[in-house]
Amino acid sequence: MDLPRALDTDLYQLTMMAGYEAVAPGTTCTFELFVRELPPERAFLVAAGLHQALDYLESLRFTSDEIAWLRTVPALAPAPATFFDTVLPNFRFRGEVWAVDEGEVVFAHEPILRVTARAAEAQLVETALVAMITFETSVASKASRVVKAAAGRPVIEFGSRRAHGLESARLAARAACLAGCSATSNVEAARRYSLPLVGTMAHSWVMAFDDEIEAFRAYSGLFGAQAVLLIDTYDTIAAAERLVEAGLTPSAVRIDSGDLVTVSRSVRAILDAGGLRATRIIVSGDLDEHQIAQLVSSGAPVDSFGVGTSISTVRDAPGLGGVYKLVEMERHGRITPTVKLSAGKRTLPGRKQVWRVAENGQALYDVIGLTEDTEQKGRPLLTCVMRHGQRLAPAPDLAALQENARQRLGELPTSVTALDEPVPLTARISPALDALARSAHHL
Amino acid sequence: MDLPRALDTDLYQLTMMAGYEAVAPGTTCTFELFVRELPPERAFLVAAGLHQALDYLESLRFTSDEIAWLRTVPALAPAPATFFDTVLPNFRFRGEVWAVDEGEVVFAHEPILRVTARAAEAQLVETALVAMITFETSVASKASRVVKAAAGRPVIEFGSRRAHGLESARLAARAACLAGCSATSNVEAARRYSLPLVGTMAHSWVMAFDDEIEAFRAYSGLFGAQAVLLIDTYDTIAAAERLVEAGLTPSAVRIDSGDLVTVSRSVRAILDAGGLRATRIIVSGDLDEHQIAQLVSSGAPVDSFGVGTSISTVRDAPGLGGVYKLVEMERHGRITPTVKLSAGKRTLPGRKQVWRVAENGQALYDVIGLTEDTEQKGRPLLTCVMRHGQRLAPAPDLAALQENARQRLGELPTSVTALDEPVPLTARISPALDALARSAHHL
Repeated sequence: MDLPRALDTDLYQLTMMAGYEAVAPGTTCTFELFVRELPPERAFLVAAGLHQALDYLESLRFTSDEIAWLRTVPALAPAPATFFDTVLPNFRFRGEVWAVDEGEVVFAHEPILRVTARAAEAQLVETALVAMITFETSVASKASRVVKAAAGRPVIEFGSRRAHGLESARLAARAACLAGCSATSNVEAARRYSLPLVGTMAHSWVMAFDDEIEAFRAYSGLFGAQAVLLIDTYDTIAAAERLVEAGLTPSAVRIDSGDLVTVSRSVRAILDAGGLRATRIIVSGDLDEHQIAQLVSSGAPVDSFGVGTSISTVRDAPGLGGVYKLVEMERHGRITPTVKLSAGKRTLPGRKQVWRVAENGQALYDVIGLTEDTEQKGRPLLTCVMRHGQRLAPAPDLAALQENARQRLGELPTSVTALDEPVPLTARISPALDALARSAHHL
Repeated sequence: MDLPRALDTDLYQLTMMAGYEAVAPGTTCTFELFVRELPPERAFLVAAGLHQALDYLESLRFTSDEIAWLRTVPALAPAPATFFDTVLPNFRFRGEVWAVDEGEVVFAHEPILRVTARAAEAQLVETALVAMITFETSVASKASRVVKAAAGRPVIEFGSRRAHGLESARLAARAACLAGCSATSNVEAARRYSLPLVGTMAHSWVMAFDDEIEAFRAYSGLFGAQAVLLIDTYDTIAAAERLVEAGLTPSAVRIDSGDLVTVSRSVRAILDAGGLRATRIIVSGDLDEHQIAQLVSSGAPVDSFGVGTSISTVRDAPGLGGVYKLVEMERHGRITPTVKLSAGKRTLPGRKQVWRVAENGQALYDVIGLTEDTEQKGRPLLTCVMRHGQRLAPAPDLAALQENARQRLGELPTSVTALDEPVPLTARISPALDALARSAHHL
């Protein structure tokens, strides 16, 4: 596992850590991680990334090499000697974490994760937690739209080469499959996360032979009925005709360019006329949910979609604004709910829970309340997943998370899941939370 | 180093590898990595990511665990036994690589990197090479725009929490500094790549104290003249007034919200009236190059800019279309230049070099030609960086790369570097390349 390490953080987390240890070592903080505003075209998010976040918290240590290096950082020179001698070597995350399950649907302002820990512990982990959870959540949310557009046809995640580095590629593959993609082409992600693995062939294979049909024959000779032939390197229609004439029986052909509606129709007709009714058509080439919806509604005879950039980089909303905000602190037994009042960035105080109220299996609205709002009806979304820095249960396997996502998405009204102009579920603020927000300190 | 590993690839690279080894083991391929089309608002790219690409190629191995797992992959079941028994265990990258230096300026269709190797070797590495080089190049290119907009004021890379995972955060910090950012807040990136490291304080620090001024005092008590105080948690103007009254002398204040032009003016006036002329003003809060240009042109008294999402996710163009295309193959001593003719995706055949023609230190135009175009005038951009799988020189340090980027960017006419409606340098095709493209096989 390439887990983030203790130094995968912003410098100010370390200076604040040193500060908390020096001036307020007995302070406990509660932070909540949420998204303040959903990007355009999004009415909901599919939460993901919790597995990596909990592994990171459990394994968090400063190595002696890291500490030796930190001693040389000018910005940390004013930190007390005990910070380097005692605090960092003994550092562990010993806090409590509540979170929604991966695959759960959340809306703006709803906590995805809540951390309660000593101030220094809760502060250090902000950067890594936000990066991990926000990224996988944004990929899962985008993938769920693409999968919906495909209307039951399999979507394969093909975006590794466009991802922001190879770790990002693996995490994108995982999040995409969690949210409904049928498979990925990323080998390491398939190995690590037990994802279905699929592949086709590249243009280079075709170009490496003197004749396209030679390239198809060589590949089919080796991979037999499993072969997927890429037929658009030179002339798609001619390639389809020639592979039929040559008596090849690929499991599928892939088309990566051109007008996919007309080309897929022509190719389908050629394959069918040649007796290759079982040969499927996979299309790819910079597809997003809108292009896929159009292909589906036009009746193009496409059996599955390979989707890259738009999922793995979340191209239309690559920087989902996940934040991690202090909502409560406790010092000497005194609990203080906290808020930030910065222009346009107001936060809600207190430890929160979210309840989803449904009727006949359809979600009606959410209530964002305080954890002590025990009278709330509906299903509470956050559960305790870590105590004293230890996970309470092993990570569920991906199949269980996929099923969770499928069920949660299935509860949403079509107004929420529409590709165009979707409307979020209403999130009501409980009377107790509303009262606390109005009375909060510093107002 | 978290280098990508052999399985950080697409499945089809492995099936094609098995195919090449089975049917054409003596084939040598040359691939070129380039960007087909620049995103909107971009007229040039700043190349980056080569260091990690070469480290990856040098260290590439299949472990016995990985091979054991690959034997269980159904899609690879048809591969010959020798593939698992001999090819994978003995696999090394033993090819030759030509590349432009990191920090070099390149345009569409110009090779950033060229790989010549046995077909299986050259093919396997496509996914990782494209991901690494495209991502760092897209960050460096974006960062160079942001730095230009800041017109000499320092830009600090603050985007780790928005990056697509923590490896992505580190690579973004590196690429941003390479292209002109003055520092990063990412601790691990600073350690690994020797980048200047800076930090401020978070809203949570302020919120964790009963009173904002207590929070400022505690932090200043520890960090003295180095302290940077974040003053927008509740009321920015009041915070500035109170820190002056309290006699604090922070090195800087940070403002993260509000109308930055008017607020920075008011804060500057308060600091100056209080004798804090040396206290700088740092602004942040979802800034991009256009907002920064506006702040600069409005004369806002801002000393430096903290920039996050727009650099670390390359928000306006997160999926730069880097491709890796077969341009030549050699079998039994016969060399064949290759092209792809797919609709809208035509490629140029042959091993290429790019020459930049300049006059009086200003770039006039580029020539894309064949390596054998030795008569070309101008500076050739690609040099040989790896032979027989070994780097020819150790990686230069980041300061040298920054200086390279600064010089290369400095050669560009303002029409190319303009923030709005920039125009790329003309890239001419050499007569020999043009003739080869017209005559290329399969036309």
